[in-house]
Amino acid sequence: MSNWIIAEPVQRLVEAFERLPGIGPKTASRLAYYLLRAPDNLALDLADALHNLKENTVLCERCFNVTVTSPCPICSDPNRDQSTVCVVEEPLDVVALERTGVFHGLYHVLHGRISPLEGIGPEQLKIRELLVRLQNEPITEVLIATNPTLEGEATAMYIARQIRPLNLRITRLAQGLPVGGDLEYADLNTLSRALSGREEMQTGEG
Amino acid sequence: MSNWIIAEPVQRLVEAFERLPGIGPKTASRLAYYLLRAPDNLALDLADALHNLKENTVLCERCFNVTVTSPCPICSDPNRDQSTVCVVEEPLDVVALERTGVFHGLYHVLHGRISPLEGIGPEQLKIRELLVRLQNEPITEVLIATNPTLEGEATAMYIARQIRPLNLRITRLAQGLPVGGDLEYADLNTLSRALSGREEMQTGEG
Repeated sequence: MSNWIIAEPVQRLVEAFERLPGIGPKTASRLAYYLLRAPDNLALDLADALHNLKENTVLCERCFNVTVTSPCPICSDPNRDQSTVCVVEEPLDVVALERTGVFHGLYHVLHGRISPLEGIGPEQLKIRELLVRLQNEPITEVLIATNPTLEGEATAMYIARQIRPLNLRITRLAQGLPVGGDLEYADLNTLSRALSGREEMQTGEG
Repeated sequence: MSNWIIAEPVQRLVEAFERLPGIGPKTASRLAYYLLRAPDNLALDLADALHNLKENTVLCERCFNVTVTSPCPICSDPNRDQSTVCVVEEPLDVVALERTGVFHGLYHVLHGRISPLEGIGPEQLKIRELLVRLQNEPITEVLIATNPTLEGEATAMYIARQIRPLNLRITRLAQGLPVGGDLEYADLNTLSRALSGREEMQTGEG
């Protein structure tokens, strides 16, 4: 009803923002009107970054992470442990894991998870490419780091079954209470998992 | 530390998103990686809308609302009540008021509020332009609809003092409990205001 009140270029930007995940009509309006007032270069910087995004990025031919040059910096780094590959759903998962500084192996990005509801089967993910890598590279351990969700678990299970014949070590990220978390607020599944996966305490003596 | 892990074009987009209000590092990353996967036209549509934004919008020469053509559709509409002008802080406030369908007068957009903390004085707002309008247009009522915040109130007070000599009716939006709100959860100021501004109840009888 009141769309004619909003100038068409503003409305167009509002609608473009609304198509992004987690951005509702109110936030979209606020962003558009903010950009209207903001110094010119903010809107144009954002526009340029958007243009630049797909033009200058490719998927790494080896691990399928997003990169400027293929193979990506991680795959080209001779100091990375070539015997371990960590399988993740999305490029952002690589970023999260690298931030820990704990993992020094290689990655393999599936670009999604098996999701019958969304019509995503194994053939839409980079699973075949993973199997090819496992046969051609000196990999001895596959750490399947898909999300601890129903779909992530199902994807992990599917991949584990596919690679079992190769006789590699297959591991999964530990599940349990989040560090700094509160037992009282842990959900039932997490708490059950923390109980069944309980570990010997290191007492520091003998 | 881990910035080299994120491909530069992605990082650049993340940083552009982070400069928007209400978008933190996590949301910015999520948006950038989403756009990477999303169909091409989403990122490019957004880029085009951004380019289009300032090129094709101007401020209305009369009310300073954002518009494609000046004067804006509201100012050019002969059916609007030319005797009442509603003074608001931002263009988005015009949108909010128009959505009610209750106000049929004209608008005047200040483009901000008096804020000593941010170094914004009356001369940076469209207050001088309002005074010129009040002297040249057949306006008899000025509804000062700045926000019910400290700064909005101070701005309203400043404007009221400036226009008092013109002998116009000066009004302010009513304050009190929000419709559908819960007395129990109303903050002290709102509740005090609702009490001191209490109105006679219409009983429908004589």
